[in-house]
Amino acid sequence: MDTNKRPEDMERITTPELAQAFVDEQVEAVRAQVGDRKVLLALSGGVDSSVVAALLIKAIGRQLICVHVNHGLMRKGESEQVVEVFRDQLDANLVYVDAADRFLSLLEGVDEPEAKRKIIGAEFIRVFEEEARKVGDEVSFLAQGTIYPDILESDGVKAHHNVGGLPDDLQFELCEPVKLLYKDEVRVIGDELGLPEGMVQRQPFPGPGLGVRCLGAITRDRLEALREADAILREEFATAGLEGKVWQYFVSVPDFRATGVRDGVRAFEWPAIIRAVNTVDAMTAEVPELDWALLKKITERILAEVPGICRVCYDLTPKPIGTIEWE
Amino acid sequence: MDTNKRPEDMERITTPELAQAFVDEQVEAVRAQVGDRKVLLALSGGVDSSVVAALLIKAIGRQLICVHVNHGLMRKGESEQVVEVFRDQLDANLVYVDAADRFLSLLEGVDEPEAKRKIIGAEFIRVFEEEARKVGDEVSFLAQGTIYPDILESDGVKAHHNVGGLPDDLQFELCEPVKLLYKDEVRVIGDELGLPEGMVQRQPFPGPGLGVRCLGAITRDRLEALREADAILREEFATAGLEGKVWQYFVSVPDFRATGVRDGVRAFEWPAIIRAVNTVDAMTAEVPELDWALLKKITERILAEVPGICRVCYDLTPKPIGTIEWE
Repeated sequence: MDTNKRPEDMERITTPELAQAFVDEQVEAVRAQVGDRKVLLALSGGVDSSVVAALLIKAIGRQLICVHVNHGLMRKGESEQVVEVFRDQLDANLVYVDAADRFLSLLEGVDEPEAKRKIIGAEFIRVFEEEARKVGDEVSFLAQGTIYPDILESDGVKAHHNVGGLPDDLQFELCEPVKLLYKDEVRVIGDELGLPEGMVQRQPFPGPGLGVRCLGAITRDRLEALREADAILREEFATAGLEGKVWQYFVSVPDFRATGVRDGVRAFEWPAIIRAVNTVDAMTAEVPELDWALLKKITERILAEVPGICRVCYDLTPKPIGTIEWE
Repeated sequence: MDTNKRPEDMERITTPELAQAFVDEQVEAVRAQVGDRKVLLALSGGVDSSVVAALLIKAIGRQLICVHVNHGLMRKGESEQVVEVFRDQLDANLVYVDAADRFLSLLEGVDEPEAKRKIIGAEFIRVFEEEARKVGDEVSFLAQGTIYPDILESDGVKAHHNVGGLPDDLQFELCEPVKLLYKDEVRVIGDELGLPEGMVQRQPFPGPGLGVRCLGAITRDRLEALREADAILREEFATAGLEGKVWQYFVSVPDFRATGVRDGVRAFEWPAIIRAVNTVDAMTAEVPELDWALLKKITERILAEVPGICRVCYDLTPKPIGTIEWE
């Protein structure tokens, strides 16, 4: 039997009861697979790795070693939430690595989008490898938040930012408890495991994080402006009840300045570009017709609260011709 | 009597009858002032200089020498319209100067907004001066499209792009027949003089033209993309009946590229930024809540028809903190 193929008679997990049954089954399966050995997991804070972490903590507790790499390109409050939920609430065996300086130093002056992605991806492997070596002797398994669309899409459209690429002398047996599930099922499991709503309903977030939204060569001041503007956008969308209704929304800040006037003096600052899209399959995407009052509120808040931003634009570009991300 | 002060009892010109009376009066006054001598006018194609040209042609015919300097930064079709209306329809004594190469060569690599404005302003004077020298011996007057707000605002807020700055050996007596009129009155006069609707209702257009909307260092390909995108915007606003209803609307194209997908291949092209504002006094401005269908149509057309553009954004920034122009 191909363990990477979802059985045709497998019921879609849509209710707490079905979720509970799946969790019970996987807890047993993981315990049988792992025994008293240890499991390593790269915990990004995204939906998939968070659900896998919570599931494994339920199954094997502190035999799971979670490594959270903060590459300095996380959204506002995300790394803090990972620590709070997993270390403080779930008593996880969590290794928190503040690698922001390493990543930002490597990225200095690099403006080509693909070069940026490669640097971030390669450095992520390097940091994770270092942590894996520290515990390598005691660890036998590598857990991953692989989900079923990752398997379906893995014939080459786009390299996913999962932890592959570890060196040959550091290979583990894989543990992928949600690999046959669709995204919506993973969220139902997350709810059942008691993860916070904001974590379970989190929008897809690219592996390179804010690094591909701080357009062109990343600087710390522009990255900080982006993080603050993005946080305001997410807060106002949540207040307006759009969380989970608009598929994806975020801010990008280009390496380009425009004129404005602040307190009567000429300002020469960055524009913040709001990107929001709805999609069924992520292959095509439409721009939602947002309420003008909401757009106005977000614009006012960003202009008033974020140093370095003197313009706010709404991206009207459907996919195609635009991609969802700006780079 | 201060001839630069509008008499308090002067009636606002709002009707064809009042316009006709003003025109008759000014035709007499100009004839009395000029006699059989000649008048020089820099005809940009904007509302003010066009109305002055039509008024002077009515008064003194081919004694008026109109110089139209095409600096290569005109909107699509504007220079052509100046030639068609004034040379072909009104039989004006029109000197058309194609100076696009001169301006664009000087601007090459210049990205600082104020430096760009200074180069364009200074070169404009230089080109106009050359033309003035050619006819200087026979010309006694310089006509200008000064209007009353120019006089009211002339205590230093912003240098207006009128033709000052001619050298001392080339000074003329001034002829400014609409200098006591407000903008709306100038438009009523333009209607009365039979100028085309599109010329009379023309939005304010900065002296440096598209030069300050082709953001950063101007290149010919990006300038051309801007001109085409701007033409589509103006066409769709006109079709939607918004001409004269939205105070000002235009496109800016930054010197910045974003990712897209065109015919299955990665594109790395410029965004077009739509700017539209309503204002009472131009000191503050609001962004109009346009119909989504219109925004969608403009976006689709620009993406389909303009080479080099793969994104369209709508600028949501009020003034302040944003200025109306991007640089």
